[in-house]
Amino acid sequence: MSFDYTPFFRSDLAAPAGRWGGFPAYNFVGGHNDAKSVPVDDLMASAAAVLAREGHALATYGLSSGPQGYRPLREGVAIQLKARAGLACTADDILVTSGSLQALDLINAALIEPGDTVILEEACYSGAMSRLKKCGASYIGAPLDGDGIRIDALTAILEGLKAKGVRPKFIYTIPTVQNPTGSVMPRARREELLKVAAAYGVPIVEDDCYADLIWDGNRPPAIKALPGGGRVIYCGSFSKSIAPALRVGYIVADWPVLSRLLPLKTDGGTGALEQMVLSEYLANGFDGHVTALTRTLQGKCAAMMEAVNQHFGSAAEFTAPKGGIFLWVTLPDAVDTGKLFKAAGAEGVAINPGSEWSADAAGGSHRLRLCFAHPSVDSIREGVAKLAEICHREFGVPVRSANVQRGGS
Amino acid sequence: MSFDYTPFFRSDLAAPAGRWGGFPAYNFVGGHNDAKSVPVDDLMASAAAVLAREGHALATYGLSSGPQGYRPLREGVAIQLKARAGLACTADDILVTSGSLQALDLINAALIEPGDTVILEEACYSGAMSRLKKCGASYIGAPLDGDGIRIDALTAILEGLKAKGVRPKFIYTIPTVQNPTGSVMPRARREELLKVAAAYGVPIVEDDCYADLIWDGNRPPAIKALPGGGRVIYCGSFSKSIAPALRVGYIVADWPVLSRLLPLKTDGGTGALEQMVLSEYLANGFDGHVTALTRTLQGKCAAMMEAVNQHFGSAAEFTAPKGGIFLWVTLPDAVDTGKLFKAAGAEGVAINPGSEWSADAAGGSHRLRLCFAHPSVDSIREGVAKLAEICHREFGVPVRSANVQRGGS
Repeated sequence: MSFDYTPFFRSDLAAPAGRWGGFPAYNFVGGHNDAKSVPVDDLMASAAAVLAREGHALATYGLSSGPQGYRPLREGVAIQLKARAGLACTADDILVTSGSLQALDLINAALIEPGDTVILEEACYSGAMSRLKKCGASYIGAPLDGDGIRIDALTAILEGLKAKGVRPKFIYTIPTVQNPTGSVMPRARREELLKVAAAYGVPIVEDDCYADLIWDGNRPPAIKALPGGGRVIYCGSFSKSIAPALRVGYIVADWPVLSRLLPLKTDGGTGALEQMVLSEYLANGFDGHVTALTRTLQGKCAAMMEAVNQHFGSAAEFTAPKGGIFLWVTLPDAVDTGKLFKAAGAEGVAINPGSEWSADAAGGSHRLRLCFAHPSVDSIREGVAKLAEICHREFGVPVRSANVQRGGS
Repeated sequence: MSFDYTPFFRSDLAAPAGRWGGFPAYNFVGGHNDAKSVPVDDLMASAAAVLAREGHALATYGLSSGPQGYRPLREGVAIQLKARAGLACTADDILVTSGSLQALDLINAALIEPGDTVILEEACYSGAMSRLKKCGASYIGAPLDGDGIRIDALTAILEGLKAKGVRPKFIYTIPTVQNPTGSVMPRARREELLKVAAAYGVPIVEDDCYADLIWDGNRPPAIKALPGGGRVIYCGSFSKSIAPALRVGYIVADWPVLSRLLPLKTDGGTGALEQMVLSEYLANGFDGHVTALTRTLQGKCAAMMEAVNQHFGSAAEFTAPKGGIFLWVTLPDAVDTGKLFKAAGAEGVAINPGSEWSADAAGGSHRLRLCFAHPSVDSIREGVAKLAEICHREFGVPVRSANVQRGGS
């Protein structure tokens, strides 16, 4: 006999979920990655080695490392951050989190009160915005150019807020392989950003989830690594560089910050087996894996750009990403990608509509985000062709693609 | 250069955490388990088998199973619940969570609004109470006897609330190996509980985390398995039966409930590697492991009861637990276990003070919870002796133990 829970639910809940219907045929959404690139053999070897050595420690919450997370993992992350991001820190400065989503949750829980204002990038990770909304914060999107946040525009925003007596709680940025644009903020811009933040007394949250996946292998130092970086709370993850289904991320911050975040982490610890296996793998194979994965992703990115060019022609504008897993595409104003999302979804082509990735939702409604990491190159070609057909049918755009009159084939 | 975050933190944050100082010499707190019993070899074999077969699925959030969690794990849990708890359900009725703590968080997030009332057990899991407080709910502790919630007392509470126009959001119970008392609610009591809940139109949350660890191996059916069980949201976990550092729990409920919980689970999924390994292990070794673990725990429980009897004598009262990992001890009223917690902690003996495990904090201040699962039998004997010494020094209790005048040895 079923029981009606309806009168007991909170009045402000989101709409109920539908039953999961499996992945779409052409899966260009989310942060899924290349399945063949998952280093399965090395993860097996890492699991065997670390369980043999320390498996019995699973009997205690937090293993033998306390609430900041498995200490060898924190030590390994510190080595990686020094080598890759120029960021000098120790295991004591790191809090392991259950994915970088939990990192954002903890930071928001410590800092955000209803009515607060946050500055983020005009094109921005949707999960960061939805979380801020849930905390009762409002956000302002800072305009971007090919090098990330435009300092002049940011200064104007900060000046405008100051005139109204508002000091934003923080500036949230994804400076290295920005989501969704794929840009990389050069060092000089990072230094300017720190200067402006200092001038207005504003903290920075640096989300570096994608930073390992940069085509040319070189990245500027983390903002947190630069002089004045004490104001930066830094987040990272292994979801993009190893596998998204592994839920291990981390926060790097000074102890006065970590000590306030820790009491908010009431999850009994981040999954220890995943921490142990990742820690072992970090020291045994990770670097070579990242190089190979990045090459694979660059190839898929090229295939995605070629397909969009071929099938959308001049109707689609984008800047070639410098790394990562996404292409951020602008279509003519007439195209409502929210509607395209529905029409394409019904035919097995899944896209992320731009409004969800835009601080100004309406302003992003003719854009879309395409993830090229998970689908095969063939699937990219077929799916983009199908998407162009559907878009043409719904909006008359693209009128024609590079070689074929739309509707003619 | 460090940056002062103080003015940016929320005004209602908990006190900052201290640096972790390692485990105490005599560790009787928390839900840690027996280290030797962690089935390391079988977990290694499970990891190897499941990664070899499905490791590449780690490239997608949710593997190939969608947001409810790894489908083979849900199928395995359904088989276990049928066999152990008489609970008929399918993979579709199960939501895998990041430990049962997340299960409580999701249930509270869906149901609790500030000002709500919840009925729970007078001696109750502290994490359940702290979560309710954080959600702005108040709770009432229903009196317990050796069979769990006293139905007469519960009826009186419900009647009293009804007279004030208050319908509680739910009754939270740990009926099978209650935390902290270790009692098991018999089937007849469960049926009565369901009847009373139906009469007053109140849902039930059944937390069955410890239910596998019952000395005689037999347990009554889950409350959710009984007629009228549709009003029950059921939670379980592998933290107690396999290893607490693995963060995998689950909720069993009808789809109209799960569909409202799912949108609140914004963590990108529960760690997939842990789900995969547990799923594989459930079918290969779990049953034998639980039998062996329970025998080990029963031996440690006997050692703990013997040590408490020896060193505290008639000053300590407790009922022999029917399973689990905890002994719930009542000392004379004069003993403040909050103070004892500090004094003993300073000398390496960690205990859980009773006020944190009592709905009426003041009423629990002369009780304490001792976890016997993690320490060795020797450590139990030494630690309890030391605790009795400290308690005698601080409160003059116990005056003397079974054979020795306090202070004489």
